[in-house]
Amino acid sequence: MSDAPEPDLDEDIAGLAEFSRAGPGITRLAWTEELRAAYQWLGGRCEEVGLRWNVDAAGNFVARWEVGEGPATLVGSHLDSVPNGGRYDGALGVLAGLHAIRLLKRRGFVPRAPIWLIAFMDEENTRFNTALFGSRAFCGEDITGLGERRDAEDMSLAEAMRPWDRDISQATRAAAVADVGRFVELHVEQGPRLEQQELQVGVVTSIVGMVGYRIEVTGEANHAGTTPMELRRDALCGAARMILAVREIARASKDTTANVGVISVAPASSNVIPGSCHFTLDLRASQDDALGQLEAVCRREIHDIAVTEDLQASLNGTYRMAAVPMDDHLIEVIETAAREEGASTVRLPSGAGHDAMLLARYVPAGMLFVPSRGGVSHSPEEFTDPEDAGRGARVLARVLERLSS
Amino acid sequence: MSDAPEPDLDEDIAGLAEFSRAGPGITRLAWTEELRAAYQWLGGRCEEVGLRWNVDAAGNFVARWEVGEGPATLVGSHLDSVPNGGRYDGALGVLAGLHAIRLLKRRGFVPRAPIWLIAFMDEENTRFNTALFGSRAFCGEDITGLGERRDAEDMSLAEAMRPWDRDISQATRAAAVADVGRFVELHVEQGPRLEQQELQVGVVTSIVGMVGYRIEVTGEANHAGTTPMELRRDALCGAARMILAVREIARASKDTTANVGVISVAPASSNVIPGSCHFTLDLRASQDDALGQLEAVCRREIHDIAVTEDLQASLNGTYRMAAVPMDDHLIEVIETAAREEGASTVRLPSGAGHDAMLLARYVPAGMLFVPSRGGVSHSPEEFTDPEDAGRGARVLARVLERLSS
Repeated sequence: MSDAPEPDLDEDIAGLAEFSRAGPGITRLAWTEELRAAYQWLGGRCEEVGLRWNVDAAGNFVARWEVGEGPATLVGSHLDSVPNGGRYDGALGVLAGLHAIRLLKRRGFVPRAPIWLIAFMDEENTRFNTALFGSRAFCGEDITGLGERRDAEDMSLAEAMRPWDRDISQATRAAAVADVGRFVELHVEQGPRLEQQELQVGVVTSIVGMVGYRIEVTGEANHAGTTPMELRRDALCGAARMILAVREIARASKDTTANVGVISVAPASSNVIPGSCHFTLDLRASQDDALGQLEAVCRREIHDIAVTEDLQASLNGTYRMAAVPMDDHLIEVIETAAREEGASTVRLPSGAGHDAMLLARYVPAGMLFVPSRGGVSHSPEEFTDPEDAGRGARVLARVLERLSS
Repeated sequence: MSDAPEPDLDEDIAGLAEFSRAGPGITRLAWTEELRAAYQWLGGRCEEVGLRWNVDAAGNFVARWEVGEGPATLVGSHLDSVPNGGRYDGALGVLAGLHAIRLLKRRGFVPRAPIWLIAFMDEENTRFNTALFGSRAFCGEDITGLGERRDAEDMSLAEAMRPWDRDISQATRAAAVADVGRFVELHVEQGPRLEQQELQVGVVTSIVGMVGYRIEVTGEANHAGTTPMELRRDALCGAARMILAVREIARASKDTTANVGVISVAPASSNVIPGSCHFTLDLRASQDDALGQLEAVCRREIHDIAVTEDLQASLNGTYRMAAVPMDDHLIEVIETAAREEGASTVRLPSGAGHDAMLLARYVPAGMLFVPSRGGVSHSPEEFTDPEDAGRGARVLARVLERLSS
């Protein structure tokens, strides 16, 4: 066993990072020229190891090691990024998949069934509000109604697909999950646990369930100087109590999180008491029953605070995704492979959504994490040590070998 | 003594309310056509009671009862409004001044010195960020450097003055305070105390001192799902604690207020932990030493919370106005006049700024409040009962009589 980085993988990471809009970090949004050029470049790298590739009707990059027979093992992630993101989120999963295939080919391994490498279109959801577009189409879901979604420049998705010679009405032709037996995704952790515990591989047990709310707290706008403190109905003070309450609730149980990421008040004048306050609430838990409990306690607490403060609170649900357990057999295969590679592991939930969340509805799916320095992602500062990346790719090779032997 | 409303005053209030931009409530901003038409109308009403009027070089409306000799007694307020404001804020002080003069003339009273009625330009500060423009110029302060301040439509103050045939470079010609012996302003309370205590006249003891801060709290933006609760440096949670702390501090002592009226976070995404939070803090107290103490305790508490939460907090002062005591003799005159009129009174500080705040630097100044229904102001809902308005005008007449006998 070696902890050394893998030179070919390092080269690929640096090579792919060339494909970005100007500016800090990586900006390679869905359906852009930068992403198309990245696909071209990746296609060339795939050809070098003997894979044939194409871009499917939904903009997914697919390279195939067509060998043996039976359902394919699918490996990969995505190449689109957030604006000013990093080099690793998504990209490392695709490049580690390519590198795993490269390692298997070098040692002369012959799989008993095909292995496909995939980069899904638009995992990040930052351009058209069409999250998991590629994996949904690949799994046969009907995404043809999304063509009129528009980006910040008011370009529709349908228009953005045209330079790619793709037509939204034909995107269901990307459906190919019927030929797939299982999906394995390597990803950077995007959190600090592995680094803080000095562990090398995270074996994902489930992708957390999440619910989103938009909350409006209504009090009474009034003059900040002439209204006595005891007569105020200050919507922001009520919201402040709610924000701290949901934090305490989420802190009290393991594997739950709560976040208020957006807040605004009206009328928003320094000398006017806020008459209303809007904020978002994002709640996550690794299991659906824990999520349900978290949600119920937070809702009750928010209503109680509103009553105490003589305010109204209304909660509007904005999103809801059930927790997605990873396949038990794949969890064990990944753990065994990591052990063989001499890597320390921990089982942990994924707090973020991934393409595997969608694939898991259709085929057994597994995920492994490699450490993220400082837990930082969606940032130019995103970094995974080359040793950790290389080790992850070697574990992935062992996983593919086990699944294809 | 009678509690009846004064028909002429009611008529004036209704007449003046005609001068407004379309939309809810009264919108009569500084240096607009609506304000100029209101001045014309008011001039006509003044002529009916034998006053001569003009608009001075700083856009103040001044009507003069030139009689006797010695320094004039100045009475009035302002006619400009906030957008979608009410009929009473400022306007009632001017119309009650006119009505008081009308009452004195009707009963044949002859003052021993002139009485001037004034409507100051731009008390409200909502168009050009040139608060108390008219009273500053009247008092001889140099406001000629403000000509390039711009409104929301990018029109400069200098441009806005042109249709009024006024030139910013000549505005210091409005200085006339040297001929004034004292200033009395009637105003709606803009707060709920008189109404709640069923009192008829508030005798203002001081105009509160105030300090404004813009506060930036810095933590670390991070993924809302993958960052464990115990490892977060959430700028908004820190700000929430600060907001509640300053409320508690202001609640703990009489005649102090604290308000956070504006708040924003960055990066402002529902699934990202706020890395920074900006908010405003407005602190007021009726006495400077109480204000100093309030400020010191709030600053210390904000810093302590930042340390506890592993955040940085920086405080930038944005405004600072010392408390302005009203003249002791005028306080007594107003109280005596109210007693003679059979009105119940209370001494109280003004939580809002007024033209009297500026005048008090140069001459003895006094203020009286009449009740505001529900404490509401700067709103189409602003309302003062005609009986309360009429009583206030009669008290004002008695004040002018006492000061001019």
